Amino acid sequence: MQTPWDHRFAQRTQRMGSSAIRELLKLTESPEIISFAGGLPAPEVFPTEEFKEACVRVLTDYGAQALQYSTTEGFLPLRELITRHTARYGISVTPDNVLITSGSQQALDLLGKILINPGDHILVESPTYLGALQAWSAYGAEYVTVPMDEHGMNTDALEEALRSSPKFIYVLPNFQNPTGVTLSLERRHKLIELADRYGVPIVEDDPYGQLRYEGEHLPAVVVLDSQFRNSSERCYAGNVIYLSTFSKILAPGIRLAWVVAPPVVIRKLVQAKQGADLHTSSFSQMVAHEVSHGGFIDQHVKLIREVYGQRRDEMLAAMDGYFPPGVEWTHPEGGLFLWGVLPENLSAAEVLKVALEQKVAFVPGAPFYPIGGGHNTMRLNFSNASPEKIREGISRMGRVLRDKIGQPASF
Amino acid sequence: MQTPWDHRFAQRTQRMGSSAIRELLKLTESPEIISFAGGLPAPEVFPTEEFKEACVRVLTDYGAQALQYSTTEGFLPLRELITRHTARYGISVTPDNVLITSGSQQALDLLGKILINPGDHILVESPTYLGALQAWSAYGAEYVTVPMDEHGMNTDALEEALRSSPKFIYVLPNFQNPTGVTLSLERRHKLIELADRYGVPIVEDDPYGQLRYEGEHLPAVVVLDSQFRNSSERCYAGNVIYLSTFSKILAPGIRLAWVVAPPVVIRKLVQAKQGADLHTSSFSQMVAHEVSHGGFIDQHVKLIREVYGQRRDEMLAAMDGYFPPGVEWTHPEGGLFLWGVLPENLSAAEVLKVALEQKVAFVPGAPFYPIGGGHNTMRLNFSNASPEKIREGISRMGRVLRDKIGQPASF
Repeated sequence: MQTPWDHRFAQRTQRMGSSAIRELLKLTESPEIISFAGGLPAPEVFPTEEFKEACVRVLTDYGAQALQYSTTEGFLPLRELITRHTARYGISVTPDNVLITSGSQQALDLLGKILINPGDHILVESPTYLGALQAWSAYGAEYVTVPMDEHGMNTDALEEALRSSPKFIYVLPNFQNPTGVTLSLERRHKLIELADRYGVPIVEDDPYGQLRYEGEHLPAVVVLDSQFRNSSERCYAGNVIYLSTFSKILAPGIRLAWVVAPPVVIRKLVQAKQGADLHTSSFSQMVAHEVSHGGFIDQHVKLIREVYGQRRDEMLAAMDGYFPPGVEWTHPEGGLFLWGVLPENLSAAEVLKVALEQKVAFVPGAPFYPIGGGHNTMRLNFSNASPEKIREGISRMGRVLRDKIGQPASF
Repeated sequence: MQTPWDHRFAQRTQRMGSSAIRELLKLTESPEIISFAGGLPAPEVFPTEEFKEACVRVLTDYGAQALQYSTTEGFLPLRELITRHTARYGISVTPDNVLITSGSQQALDLLGKILINPGDHILVESPTYLGALQAWSAYGAEYVTVPMDEHGMNTDALEEALRSSPKFIYVLPNFQNPTGVTLSLERRHKLIELADRYGVPIVEDDPYGQLRYEGEHLPAVVVLDSQFRNSSERCYAGNVIYLSTFSKILAPGIRLAWVVAPPVVIRKLVQAKQGADLHTSSFSQMVAHEVSHGGFIDQHVKLIREVYGQRRDEMLAAMDGYFPPGVEWTHPEGGLFLWGVLPENLSAAEVLKVALEQKVAFVPGAPFYPIGGGHNTMRLNFSNASPEKIREGISRMGRVLRDKIGQPASF
């Protein structure tokens, strides 16, 4: 059916492909499918009782404020809570360094809006987070890539990529989405030095930093940058914009995240956010503050670590047991995902088709490669399904892979 | 203090001036100021008890779903509720015509993203809603204006403006922000015919349609367009995109609005929203659905009409009593605002400075004019302050105006 709108769409819409992840989520919504496709937290650990109490308290004590318009920057007590929270991870900033966003996806969109001119090069890991590509392609971004290995972005290849004068470097240092890999401390230092030498700033995306199940916490890139600059200012004004979120430590459904950045960046982001959605829900912000204060997040993160750590272990053990030789995978120290690499001659998209017949799903890795490649890679989420479902789903995937690879079971 | 970011901002940020309204709201936040500046609903009528009950019910019965990621299109039962709600105003559509957004400001931003190429002409009323200008200027929009009079957009001047081949026409037909003026039925018909003849589609922004305090409800432009096309399809696929919101009939703090549009437009908006914020808060959507179903909105709108109608009457009566000759103002049949016109030789911005000393505030009208003009105009909000404060504030403004105009009190 023709409509008056058909030929009126802006040119940029040709670059706005529907998210492969979102479309796949639709396919995998059917309850009989065991899905490792999404990036969903485990609903069993949502603090629903705490939310219920917080809603009642907020509406009883501050109902009119919670339901009214509020400032674009975000609810000040929540921004203060965030500075106290991040300070314990070494990120020592003031509320003037903090903007509340409607999920980290909005932070990525607003960064695109204030930073990217059409044709600008953005330096990203390959593979990298699909949501960032989706947000920035709409602003005309082009991508320069640096390959990953088991220690994260390969900083030996970084210098050459920096010669293309990218607008900024985008890095997910902890338990990266999609690979689950963590950037080593040595490489973090090298990244900061090279970025400083070439005058290229860094966007650090850290949704999972606290969800570590083994090994030692590594300082955030923003922390190392602050030390590198040796600044005595409390208000951070360095080379890094840092993103994190309540989605993985409280709940994603309330759409609450934050940006830490120099005030000059925060002010531009505020202008962009005014035009984008005026402000993030006053009610959500006040409820999240009510749930979080008094140390609840720390206590809750311990529970999440325990549950997700167990699920990661279950998935790794099942893969050891059921996957045939020729398939390799990462061993994430935290986060929500691991990354599989199939033999070169196998297409993960083809494997997915057969897997869906067996009622198990994952995300093929190719869309995470901004300039092509990765046809034989796949992302598996281990946070959402129960350990029993993880074992069953990996067993089904093992059968599919053994069929495809044409080898007998290895046990 | 120099930062690595100072010279990295995108060109479009030069077009993203901080909203005059938002900056003024900061000035007028001090409690001793009587503010007619914002567009805030009356907090006294927020249904906080109903929200409290709804939160508890939603978290008790559907906690895991309310706190989890959800689809970009929006919560289906809420989209269905919206189709039932709008049907009673003659807007007969299906859920495939409906997208939930994070406030109407996000709908404006997403429309800019999917429709506006840099340099595109957008046809707007003069004056028009500042938030739309702010959203669309970031995408490189240029504006073609049609003047307003007491019957709304002057459709006699519309045809010439249409010859510049605008991308779309933006119209606020009911109790327009900022003027409070309503587009007459005759002009609604003429708008639809001219838009069809020139092949230019329409964006209809209707946040206040149900808040009518006198006169008869006029059919929405989208309804008249549907009749004009004489289509028998239930799914609307015509020339109009229609925006409305829960901000004025429930509460703005939860950031919930909706777009009604042909499915081809909804699909593009969904792609844009995926990159912008993934989806609107699952929790807010489920709570709004819980509060709204069973006829609560109709009952609540009656209360709002009564309270705001009384406040409008109070403001009009006070202006009659306190404002000197030479000042004129509109008589809105609904909505939140009225519009004042000062003598040509007075600047509303200058008057505001003196008014702030007298602890009363309004918004000067000039920023609402996309291509200049309106230095002697002002927007006054009558929904937020109590009738007593309205009388006192208008009395103070009357003193300021009499001083400025240099005439004795007219009573």
